[in-house]
Amino acid sequence: MALLVQEYLDRIRAEHADAADGALADYIPELARVDPAGFGVSLSSSDGFVYESGDAGVEFTIQSISKAFTYALALDRIGEVAVDARIGVEPSGEAFNEISVDETTRMPKNPMINAGAIAAVSLIPAGSADERFALIHDFYSACAGRRLDLDVDVYESEKATGSRNRAIAYMLQSFGVLDDDPDEVLDVYYRQCSLRVTTTDLARMAATLARGGSNPMTGRRVTTSAVVKRTLSVMVTCGMYDAAGDWVSAVGMPAKSGVGGGIVAVLPGQLGIGVYSPLLDDKGNSVRGVRLCRSLSEQLGLHFLAVSRESRAAMRAVYEPLEGVRVYETHGDLSFCGAEQVVRTVDREMRGFDVVILDVSRVDDIDDAARGLLSGMSKILRAQGKTGYVVDPGGIMTDTEAESDGVRFRTVDDAVAAASSR
Amino acid sequence: MALLVQEYLDRIRAEHADAADGALADYIPELARVDPAGFGVSLSSSDGFVYESGDAGVEFTIQSISKAFTYALALDRIGEVAVDARIGVEPSGEAFNEISVDETTRMPKNPMINAGAIAAVSLIPAGSADERFALIHDFYSACAGRRLDLDVDVYESEKATGSRNRAIAYMLQSFGVLDDDPDEVLDVYYRQCSLRVTTTDLARMAATLARGGSNPMTGRRVTTSAVVKRTLSVMVTCGMYDAAGDWVSAVGMPAKSGVGGGIVAVLPGQLGIGVYSPLLDDKGNSVRGVRLCRSLSEQLGLHFLAVSRESRAAMRAVYEPLEGVRVYETHGDLSFCGAEQVVRTVDREMRGFDVVILDVSRVDDIDDAARGLLSGMSKILRAQGKTGYVVDPGGIMTDTEAESDGVRFRTVDDAVAAASSR
Amino acid sequence: MALLVQEYLDRIRAEHADAADGALADYIPELARVDPAGFGVSLSSSDGFVYESGDAGVEFTIQSISKAFTYALALDRIGEVAVDARIGVEPSGEAFNEISVDETTRMPKNPMINAGAIAAVSLIPAGSADERFALIHDFYSACAGRRLDLDVDVYESEKATGSRNRAIAYMLQSFGVLDDDPDEVLDVYYRQCSLRVTTTDLARMAATLARGGSNPMTGRRVTTSAVVKRTLSVMVTCGMYDAAGDWVSAVGMPAKSGVGGGIVAVLPGQLGIGVYSPLLDDKGNSVRGVRLCRSLSEQLGLHFLAVSRESRAAMRAVYEPLEGVRVYETHGDLSFCGAEQVVRTVDREMRGFDVVILDVSRVDDIDDAARGLLSGMSKILRAQGKTGYVVDPGGIMTDTEAESDGVRFRTVDDAVAAASSR
Amino acid sequence: MALLVQEYLDRIRAEHADAADGALADYIPELARVDPAGFGVSLSSSDGFVYESGDAGVEFTIQSISKAFTYALALDRIGEVAVDARIGVEPSGEAFNEISVDETTRMPKNPMINAGAIAAVSLIPAGSADERFALIHDFYSACAGRRLDLDVDVYESEKATGSRNRAIAYMLQSFGVLDDDPDEVLDVYYRQCSLRVTTTDLARMAATLARGGSNPMTGRRVTTSAVVKRTLSVMVTCGMYDAAGDWVSAVGMPAKSGVGGGIVAVLPGQLGIGVYSPLLDDKGNSVRGVRLCRSLSEQLGLHFLAVSRESRAAMRAVYEPLEGVRVYETHGDLSFCGAEQVVRTVDREMRGFDVVILDVSRVDDIDDAARGLLSGMSKILRAQGKTGYVVDPGGIMTDTEAESDGVRFRTVDDAVAAASSR
Repeated sequence: MALLVQEYLDRIRAEHADAADGALADYIPELARVDPAGFGVSLSSSDGFVYESGDAGVEFTIQSISKAFTYALALDRIGEVAVDARIGVEPSGEAFNEISVDETTRMPKNPMINAGAIAAVSLIPAGSADERFALIHDFYSACAGRRLDLDVDVYESEKATGSRNRAIAYMLQSFGVLDDDPDEVLDVYYRQCSLRVTTTDLARMAATLARGGSNPMTGRRVTTSAVVKRTLSVMVTCGMYDAAGDWVSAVGMPAKSGVGGGIVAVLPGQLGIGVYSPLLDDKGNSVRGVRLCRSLSEQLGLHFLAVSRESRAAMRAVYEPLEGVRVYETHGDLSFCGAEQVVRTVDREMRGFDVVILDVSRVDDIDDAARGLLSGMSKILRAQGKTGYVVDPGGIMTDTEAESDGVRFRTVDDAVAAASSR
Repeated sequence: MALLVQEYLDRIRAEHADAADGALADYIPELARVDPAGFGVSLSSSDGFVYESGDAGVEFTIQSISKAFTYALALDRIGEVAVDARIGVEPSGEAFNEISVDETTRMPKNPMINAGAIAAVSLIPAGSADERFALIHDFYSACAGRRLDLDVDVYESEKATGSRNRAIAYMLQSFGVLDDDPDEVLDVYYRQCSLRVTTTDLARMAATLARGGSNPMTGRRVTTSAVVKRTLSVMVTCGMYDAAGDWVSAVGMPAKSGVGGGIVAVLPGQLGIGVYSPLLDDKGNSVRGVRLCRSLSEQLGLHFLAVSRESRAAMRAVYEPLEGVRVYETHGDLSFCGAEQVVRTVDREMRGFDVVILDVSRVDDIDDAARGLLSGMSKILRAQGKTGYVVDPGGIMTDTEAESDGVRFRTVDDAVAAASSR
Repeated sequence: MALLVQEYLDRIRAEHADAADGALADYIPELARVDPAGFGVSLSSSDGFVYESGDAGVEFTIQSISKAFTYALALDRIGEVAVDARIGVEPSGEAFNEISVDETTRMPKNPMINAGAIAAVSLIPAGSADERFALIHDFYSACAGRRLDLDVDVYESEKATGSRNRAIAYMLQSFGVLDDDPDEVLDVYYRQCSLRVTTTDLARMAATLARGGSNPMTGRRVTTSAVVKRTLSVMVTCGMYDAAGDWVSAVGMPAKSGVGGGIVAVLPGQLGIGVYSPLLDDKGNSVRGVRLCRSLSEQLGLHFLAVSRESRAAMRAVYEPLEGVRVYETHGDLSFCGAEQVVRTVDREMRGFDVVILDVSRVDDIDDAARGLLSGMSKILRAQGKTGYVVDPGGIMTDTEAESDGVRFRTVDDAVAAASSR
Repeated sequence: MALLVQEYLDRIRAEHADAADGALADYIPELARVDPAGFGVSLSSSDGFVYESGDAGVEFTIQSISKAFTYALALDRIGEVAVDARIGVEPSGEAFNEISVDETTRMPKNPMINAGAIAAVSLIPAGSADERFALIHDFYSACAGRRLDLDVDVYESEKATGSRNRAIAYMLQSFGVLDDDPDEVLDVYYRQCSLRVTTTDLARMAATLARGGSNPMTGRRVTTSAVVKRTLSVMVTCGMYDAAGDWVSAVGMPAKSGVGGGIVAVLPGQLGIGVYSPLLDDKGNSVRGVRLCRSLSEQLGLHFLAVSRESRAAMRAVYEPLEGVRVYETHGDLSFCGAEQVVRTVDREMRGFDVVILDVSRVDDIDDAARGLLSGMSKILRAQGKTGYVVDPGGIMTDTEAESDGVRFRTVDDAVAAASSR
């Protein structure tokens, strides 16, 4: 039944699949020769279930997406106060590779630009560059739920072409932001940027943040919810684009992109998303990746200012009034995430009963994405020889076929009666 | 039992009560002669329950807080596309009363600065200034759940001293942003700013946004969730301070302040907050109001990037295994909002039973604010002659007195057995 | 013999005559219907001699060029200290009609933008708007050396379309920069902008500044050299373009343009220049006017950082060693301005003698423009039946025909001997 | 008689001698341990005569003053077009050591900030760092008229502490502005900054610019007038302070300062000025040096927009109507520079005659500085047993003692008659 969500994902991805605008990053040969047609997306629910569409298995380098995670690691290791003494949290309004240091504080404006990211690397406490990279490597891998590999070619190319970053690192040293040797810090930074991920890795890393620091697949707590809250806060205002207002309005998910073509986006408490398409706009963001994030947000209602209340929805109670008859009582506002949870639960539990009664009588509101999922669920149940009833006195599922085939009831008792008299 | 939350609120307010820094607004005499000691706060839960502390009944003029609501009304009436054609959504980085028009688009940068707010007034479709104000007045009143009054003295003073706003209005006219007569638009704007509110009004207006556009007290749907989502998005990046990054990191609630001393803050899906203290900082924000918002966020865990997952917690099931014995099964992460919901439910239902069993065995995490509330609940139950048991196999309520007096059990069965053998 | 300079001027003007890019100002109908082909230039020497080329007699409205002169008048009337308390002297980096007020001082950044110009109008001490305009009108007319006329149509159109300027005026009032009624001040401002001038008027107004405040034609002292020094200083950094560095480097003359198509440029101590061509670039500067200024500076060596030393050149002594033989002894560096002075003096005095000996033996350096003028002079002398000798032991006039026809001598004595033996 | 100018200089220097505000540069130990009381000034006339006051013989490192001269050398060697392709000419509005690269062009904004200065070094064509430094060293020395020495300690300290400059150099490399090895370019830059000069050296270097590229002492042409014109243009808008408008208005001399405490200022065609006082303001400019420049400009009328016309003044003719009687005929406007020229000429020629007649009947205007000098001249002449007469029909020398002792005449003939009848 995961197929239902899958269909959504495939359809939204397909809307953008034909676009071919944008250009490959070309400052190093490794990035310039990837397949420009690559296009994948993965969604991880906060309990670790992953949907994939397109090139979700293709590996690419994480690049600047790493900034969010190294910042989280720095916060985890030395605490907010110590990190805040070296890196700000305000948008920079500048291109990602400018030297953006706050005039007054002499600190990088935020950890999502190179200056702040290099500073963040230097804040990871370690006795050597190798040890520092090992900590970073472990942290990313714990978020992804598997051991990530280093792309040695990319690492070496990055290192060979990095005069901009050397400029930044020396500037930071001159401002007293960087205590360690600039070249050693940069070496770790280049390694971190060269770790290879798939969109599914990114989705799991995002879901780890969405879950407040626990990897939903492995169950391992990677960092604290306080670290995650701060990291997501900074992603909101500094993660994507200069135009933070537009991103918050239109997408409403903390996010971070990389020139490798990846984007990670987090719907706190709900979802982790990973996207890949290596054709970049002139700001270095994946062209199709950005569009896909917008479409996902719009069509699935994934916006952090919208989901909170709806997230209380989903299942209020589950019970079996009769042998073989199971009632799923939902309430609140039903949006994509809630409906996905219902659908997947039913899917998982379907084997043990014959009749599923979906009670939406306490649901206040339902959006199209949720209605589509639940409506699809009835259809699949029937296809598998089960009976699916809907208790919908207010007709909020109207316009769906549920209504048309006599499976809609005004009360649970009516539905149970119908079930018992089958 | 609302007393428990009340105590939290009183204590946090008391932390800031003695502060006397900041200054009254003095550009009009009416603002300069209010009582500088005034200090109140109100919280409305998303289901309409209101907590008050301090001068929650004192009326003051809404001033710039109105900007958020007129923007919402404009979105409601003419739609996002039409509003976006006249008002941007990006932070301006400028003081609230500067003429801040985007160089490229020639539009006000956002609706939270005067330029954008004046433009928003002009977008409310109406045949006359009076009609336009009536629509605004009705909308605010519907959000607050009562008819708001106009402070005629403030209105007339504002009107008499407004050369800055006339400058802004003429500038907007010259850029083609303002179609109507500048002086007529300003007249409506001054009236809107001069509406009188209490912190409880603000809390209800905020809760209406927190609820996605339905007033939790009256149940009336005031606007759509899409309008609310957009309004809150803009409040996130443009509502308070130039330093959006700091506000998002430290407070994490869309908010808006006014020179009358008020601040409105919204925890989407959860809470509406209204604060009042007329002593302002040099940016025109209430000094104690800002501090109170920070403390509320920190101490009660009210942060929009933190609550989502926790909000799914609270009650998973409520049932009565025995006559007079009621089990409240909680799950997920328990934070202030979830615990408040539990406490208030128990309070409401307490009369009909003797034993309350709070089952936290499925709770993943609990913060101090929630632990304090639940621990306080046990105490009050006992004080009223009831019995309060806690099922807490993992000891997450440890450090509370619950443990010390033999009311802690490993399973619900154990607790029920104990209850039946009393 | 003025023909020599005339030829230069005509030739340089001709280089740009065919250009037709740019667009007429169209914010009022009067500006939109002028002849786009109009193109004139006038040069006034600091002693009042005027050269004209092209449409030097066409009248157009002075527009923003007026800003420089009203600023001068304000300085003249109330002094630098009082003016500096209301108007800054720093470049604004903004378009001419933006509201550009310094964030810290709350004053217009400089008098060459609208905000500063409107403030300057308000600083002219007068009992009424009419009196104020009369002072301005008198001042401009005294600089031009004739009574300037008001273009009533332009004035009325400007007044009818001025919401931008009303915005600016109200903003200034709100900052305490403008004491008087904004609309009355604007009325004077629109009248000042609507005064009609020709390029010859502009050249004379410029020459009045070049002469330190004395009109070279009328001999009347219009203002003090201190006022002129300050006015020219501000024109250097704020007069033309945002790109002050480029203008100073490439043109090197304090200048000011107007949307009427005029440009005024001053070579301190030397020349006043007026240019007219109504096709404007996107910053509102005359396209051909700007190019002409560049060419004049390059080809005639008119740059305020170049002329100083050369200006000491020109005639060191004039004497008649024999009846009918006159020696013009020049020294220093000879550039256009010095050579022009020599040529014009010879022209004026030519009637009384038969032989002119030009002694360049003390000249250190000579540029092409000067060499061309002096060489041309010899030719004309001969054409009028006079004899022109050059004393040029170092051969600095080489490459000219002077050398080729046996009129070049090593010493004045040799030349005088030759003259006496004719 | 040079004493007269000397007195002016001493008096103006004395006005600021007691000031002790500001702080020594302390980023390297060598700068932190110089005598903070050091305070000297030198003036070189454009014909090479030098006045000195205070610590004019103390050597200090040239530091950023070098930027102007290396820029001139780059222009001299590869031409404006090639230099303009790498370094802009616009003010940066930023502190001297920020990385200030134009967003659009990716070039340093101007050659007076570190980024532009480092780029300028790299543009000097040479086969090695040593050769490049040799060219720079030779050029500076030719401007100063003596071989300048390198302060090896400062050079080594600069080199050891230069992470900011390494940042800048790597940034330039990344933008394609710097072709050579960053560290080699910086090595030359540090050497150039560590050359030792006195205020007299600076005055001579400035006078070389004032003379259009010829060293007035040695007579050697060091560069072309076109190079000088461009260099001075850039010094006008970018040389001192962010506040170019204020510097042009108040001082009106192209200038450049260094953290060694020196300032060089140029009055084109007239004077070169060198100042030294190592106590710096927070922008790195010499506190007393800046004040001294302002006072010199105000009190001696040294402003590049004021001198041009006056510079034509000074001596129009010198002749001896009688044996032992010499007439100095002056004309135009008499300011400090012209009067200084007169005074020094008389001083030099005094031996051969008994009566000096100063004819000011053709002088249009005279300022206080000039009046003081000429008045002082009469006094000194008399003190040496000579007779000094003034022909001053208009009484422009009034208020001086000249009038009081019967040495003032209406015509030269009257004065000559008086001289012959002594």
